[in-house]
Amino acid sequence: MRDVSIIGIGQTPVGEHWDKSLRHLGYDALAAAMRDANIERADALYVGNMLSGEISGQAHLGALIADFAGLRGIEAIKVEAACASAAAAFRQAYIGVASGLQDIVIALGVEKMTDDVGSALTAGLASAADADYESVHGITFVALNALIMQRYLYEHQVCREDFAGFALNAHFNGAGNPNAMFQRPIRREDFVHSGMVADPIGLLDASPMADGAAAVILCPTEQAREFTNNAIRIRGSAVVTDSLSVHDRRDPLWLQAAEDSSKRAYRQAGVTPEDIDFFELHDAFTIMSALSLEASGFAERGKGTWLARDGEISLEGKIPITTRGGLKARGHPVGATGLYQIVEAIQQLRGEAGDNQVANARLGMTQNIGGSGATIVTHIFERMN
Amino acid sequence: MRDVSIIGIGQTPVGEHWDKSLRHLGYDALAAAMRDANIERADALYVGNMLSGEISGQAHLGALIADFAGLRGIEAIKVEAACASAAAAFRQAYIGVASGLQDIVIALGVEKMTDDVGSALTAGLASAADADYESVHGITFVALNALIMQRYLYEHQVCREDFAGFALNAHFNGAGNPNAMFQRPIRREDFVHSGMVADPIGLLDASPMADGAAAVILCPTEQAREFTNNAIRIRGSAVVTDSLSVHDRRDPLWLQAAEDSSKRAYRQAGVTPEDIDFFELHDAFTIMSALSLEASGFAERGKGTWLARDGEISLEGKIPITTRGGLKARGHPVGATGLYQIVEAIQQLRGEAGDNQVANARLGMTQNIGGSGATIVTHIFERMN
Repeated sequence: MRDVSIIGIGQTPVGEHWDKSLRHLGYDALAAAMRDANIERADALYVGNMLSGEISGQAHLGALIADFAGLRGIEAIKVEAACASAAAAFRQAYIGVASGLQDIVIALGVEKMTDDVGSALTAGLASAADADYESVHGITFVALNALIMQRYLYEHQVCREDFAGFALNAHFNGAGNPNAMFQRPIRREDFVHSGMVADPIGLLDASPMADGAAAVILCPTEQAREFTNNAIRIRGSAVVTDSLSVHDRRDPLWLQAAEDSSKRAYRQAGVTPEDIDFFELHDAFTIMSALSLEASGFAERGKGTWLARDGEISLEGKIPITTRGGLKARGHPVGATGLYQIVEAIQQLRGEAGDNQVANARLGMTQNIGGSGATIVTHIFERMN
Repeated sequence: MRDVSIIGIGQTPVGEHWDKSLRHLGYDALAAAMRDANIERADALYVGNMLSGEISGQAHLGALIADFAGLRGIEAIKVEAACASAAAAFRQAYIGVASGLQDIVIALGVEKMTDDVGSALTAGLASAADADYESVHGITFVALNALIMQRYLYEHQVCREDFAGFALNAHFNGAGNPNAMFQRPIRREDFVHSGMVADPIGLLDASPMADGAAAVILCPTEQAREFTNNAIRIRGSAVVTDSLSVHDRRDPLWLQAAEDSSKRAYRQAGVTPEDIDFFELHDAFTIMSALSLEASGFAERGKGTWLARDGEISLEGKIPITTRGGLKARGHPVGATGLYQIVEAIQQLRGEAGDNQVANARLGMTQNIGGSGATIVTHIFERMN
């Protein structure tokens, strides 16, 4: 098995790209990553995407985007794991290079959600949950997360205002990210008085739907120096699943797949949570930030919000999270999000995060969540110099 | 890179499974393959599927089926490459084992098409073509293939009756396959007088939509003997893409991706087309059989139908094809088809093909086509004893 590094990154701004089609978005990120790596060809392309069939009437994105990007003929497939599609595609790219079968590989996440802003989108997002046992009852994806959050408030004796820190931190960091959808800080009272979406999830607990694409280029670490002096090594990689249905979990307030995938990644990297310099977690809703911090070993059970309250998630804190705005402020183009997280982690490790730079960042972790915890993909990256 | 073998196979009958859900179908094939390999656990599951989001409102099949099959927690994702989804999933399983990251891996193809038999299905199938430049004009998938066939008739001076041999051979072989959707031979006059679907494609040129699931278990060849005495080695594996749009191909009558992927597979296996004992090709329409035989080196350009005319595609012929009925008679559950082909190839190489056995079969080839040739996945398998 070969050691694998990242030699190029690219992204489009996250937002409502009414003027760009799915393939254009994908191309923009892919071409930027290829320029960044200074490569003109690749052996394979893995595309992460969730909703193109439902929203754009377009399947078969591997071949489509390969051809549109001038890479006609290369091996190309699409990978889907709901909102974890992009990190799952990255994982396949990693395995491809590690195997020795592929040398230069592109992982691309792309989602175009604004082609439909009506019922197809809500139904499409609900397809991440269990169609026969959850969605069939009419529950939407935000409602499912609201049930989890409501139970969390009850079990752990916290109030919804205790989650404000997650949103404030994300929006504060989003202001420093030129690719973020929202680049304006919010105040605590904005959070408290924001409209209710699905009790207790308010508007500022929830990440926005958006269009976007992000891409990275991978190659064997031993070849990385031919392309760049700032290659970033992949030190840990894991995909773990759980039941799709929340009611079928042993404990609906514990992300078992986050615990297991982070532990696998820590073991592969030979590190502990204390070694991680920043953590790009999956804050689709603020409740997911708390659950992710707890299951990944950064907070005790029921005390995830304490890190936000104590300022430990800020850029100068013990464990900085959502350093470029996270899903909340950068935006959440579902099938692309996992690669935005990875691109942002690489920016931090290269020292290219501008106003949002985490000082002396050496080890970064990303965690992309599909559904309400049914697929969790964790990666650990390390600066080489 | 490790050598990889197949130690278990499973399938459901192909047909209209009104009484079974998507997850049940997937489970049936997966459990049969696990029993066949005599295993109770696995490291990863790759699910090939095209249309579950559009037809069943269900994405996220990796986690869903892993959990339903009692494998909660294992690494699991879905792979999509239109009608080539299942062979693409198999390719990822192969890479996973070859890499050394995964030992026991399940590749599963599953499709439930009868949950919708109306416009969603036709629109879903059209999403394999280019939504912005083909489907937008209202062309369906069969109409696209009809344009290709019409041009083939004109360029190569053949008539639509020359394609009869492909349908006759498929239905003859389907009669010997207990899992085939159609198990009754047809006569030449049935073909000639079959109703026109999209001129020149008649009903008996076209494969039927269906439900079904097929699965295989892979492991490193060096471990295979721990499980079975009849493991089958994977000798060649390749995915190659082309433009989605037919009008954008350099030559719409030549499957460039079939030529390139078969050549890659031949090279990896160190064999030539003459060495192949049988070929499970992608006869979604009879025209695809001719194009596949030509591009893969079994017939000269424009002479693919000659093999059918001369009886060379029968079980005793020079290059037996669709030995268990093919897409035409076994049925074409789109996202599962590629793994039916592989399961059937393994049956032949194990000597378990019953009335359809190809005598002394040692090297078998499968080819799964996505869209009208935009993703082509070719595999070569060899009997080890």
